[in-house]
Amino acid sequence: MKECIGKVPGLAVILVGDRRDSQTYVRNKIKACEEAGIKSVMAELPNYCAEDDVMTAVLKFNEDPSVHGVLVQLPLPEHLDEEKILNVLSLEKDVDGFHPVNMGNLAMRGREPLFIPCTPKGCLELLIRSGVEIAGKKAVVIGRSNIVGLPISLLLQRHHATVSIVHACTKNPEQITREADIVVTAAGVPNLIRSSWLKQGSVVIDVGTCPIEDPSSEFGYRLVGDVCYEEALRVASAVTPVPGGVGPMTIAMLLCNTLDSAKRVYGFA
Amino acid sequence: MKECIGKVPGLAVILVGDRRDSQTYVRNKIKACEEAGIKSVMAELPNYCAEDDVMTAVLKFNEDPSVHGVLVQLPLPEHLDEEKILNVLSLEKDVDGFHPVNMGNLAMRGREPLFIPCTPKGCLELLIRSGVEIAGKKAVVIGRSNIVGLPISLLLQRHHATVSIVHACTKNPEQITREADIVVTAAGVPNLIRSSWLKQGSVVIDVGTCPIEDPSSEFGYRLVGDVCYEEALRVASAVTPVPGGVGPMTIAMLLCNTLDSAKRVYGFA
Repeated sequence: MKECIGKVPGLAVILVGDRRDSQTYVRNKIKACEEAGIKSVMAELPNYCAEDDVMTAVLKFNEDPSVHGVLVQLPLPEHLDEEKILNVLSLEKDVDGFHPVNMGNLAMRGREPLFIPCTPKGCLELLIRSGVEIAGKKAVVIGRSNIVGLPISLLLQRHHATVSIVHACTKNPEQITREADIVVTAAGVPNLIRSSWLKQGSVVIDVGTCPIEDPSSEFGYRLVGDVCYEEALRVASAVTPVPGGVGPMTIAMLLCNTLDSAKRVYGFA
Repeated sequence: MKECIGKVPGLAVILVGDRRDSQTYVRNKIKACEEAGIKSVMAELPNYCAEDDVMTAVLKFNEDPSVHGVLVQLPLPEHLDEEKILNVLSLEKDVDGFHPVNMGNLAMRGREPLFIPCTPKGCLELLIRSGVEIAGKKAVVIGRSNIVGLPISLLLQRHHATVSIVHACTKNPEQITREADIVVTAAGVPNLIRSSWLKQGSVVIDVGTCPIEDPSSEFGYRLVGDVCYEEALRVASAVTPVPGGVGPMTIAMLLCNTLDSAKRVYGFA
């Protein structure tokens, strides 16, 4: 793209506050942009900034023609209205796919969202590239967050899986999960998924990322998933590790969405 | 409302073509408006009208301050682009709740759609008024249409049920359905649900409406549901009949959404 039309895709990241995990995620995203030749700009705001400051940052990037994707790193500090902030984000730059219009179009048959949220898109890519059949298979999604559980369930349904959504109110989640051919878990509960939760030969995607204190690690903590990995390996036919499984795919899909957005703007096929 | 502020709610219905079932539905909606004191206006367009004619009708009602709800009776004839037409419908008058923003906000936790689609809202109302517990219960939704299956699954999930969605690609739908405490079926397949599909004591809501030729009926046909009613009654603790079950509730919710819309416009609490 750079060689053909002299333009590069641009991603803007807005980070509010000092959550360690958010800082790690943002750092990794910026680094991936550099490696891929995507221009990245970042706005860092303090924990106790005003809502208007975040809005102003979003609006500035909305207007900037060199920016094709705008990402507000979630979760935001509690005093900020996430809905209000995400609603001002330009639909055409919503590379995270969290705008209600994108979510509605992801949910509805026959519609196409402009962007599919990165983590769900990464999970699907993992399944498809690994040759896992999805249509007609029983899939269980554990967790129903707006950023992972909900869109992954909608996306699996789009690919014709029979989807069940398990959450904190579910009775006997273990029994329901044990019936699944495909398990995607995003509960944020370390070691929730033991071997007894899994059907022989199932495919397990672990989206859980819970920061655990670890003084031996470079940043003083490490991320652990929902799945008891060693146990799961004995039963499942495939299990994604944490870290190194869904995380890198999420970042790859973010770059992919940003590139798609730039292509759309420049009419570059 | 009429007595207090001299205004009545207004509903506009757009009917394209001559589908018998659509004509029946529209007739029933208009009649219900009359009974409830809601002003109704109707635009009837021929089967082979141009897309622009439908768009013009929608835009006219969007602008009309005496109209608080606009409803395009679905399905539209195949040559018309349903998405394009529904997208021009004013979000504030989308009493059917089919706009992607409404659907996205229905799907997302912590968000509130302006309108909940009428049939799903009617199903929920039936469950709640009948004292059926939803939170933590296993619910199976059969069918994943944009107008029933999808929004009912999102709505049941909002009420903390553990939801599984069964559709044409599902293997062993009977077995999955038999595990459900609550079954909502919108497949449009007469007598699909036999007693063997149901758990003892389950609650069954039949949204199926399939027109069947019947010369003895006033209009030459009658509507039948998805559920083999007599069989289901022997196993389930409650079954909605067709007709007379979900249909009237759908209409009641349409009036309710129209009234809510008018209240919102006039700031009438």
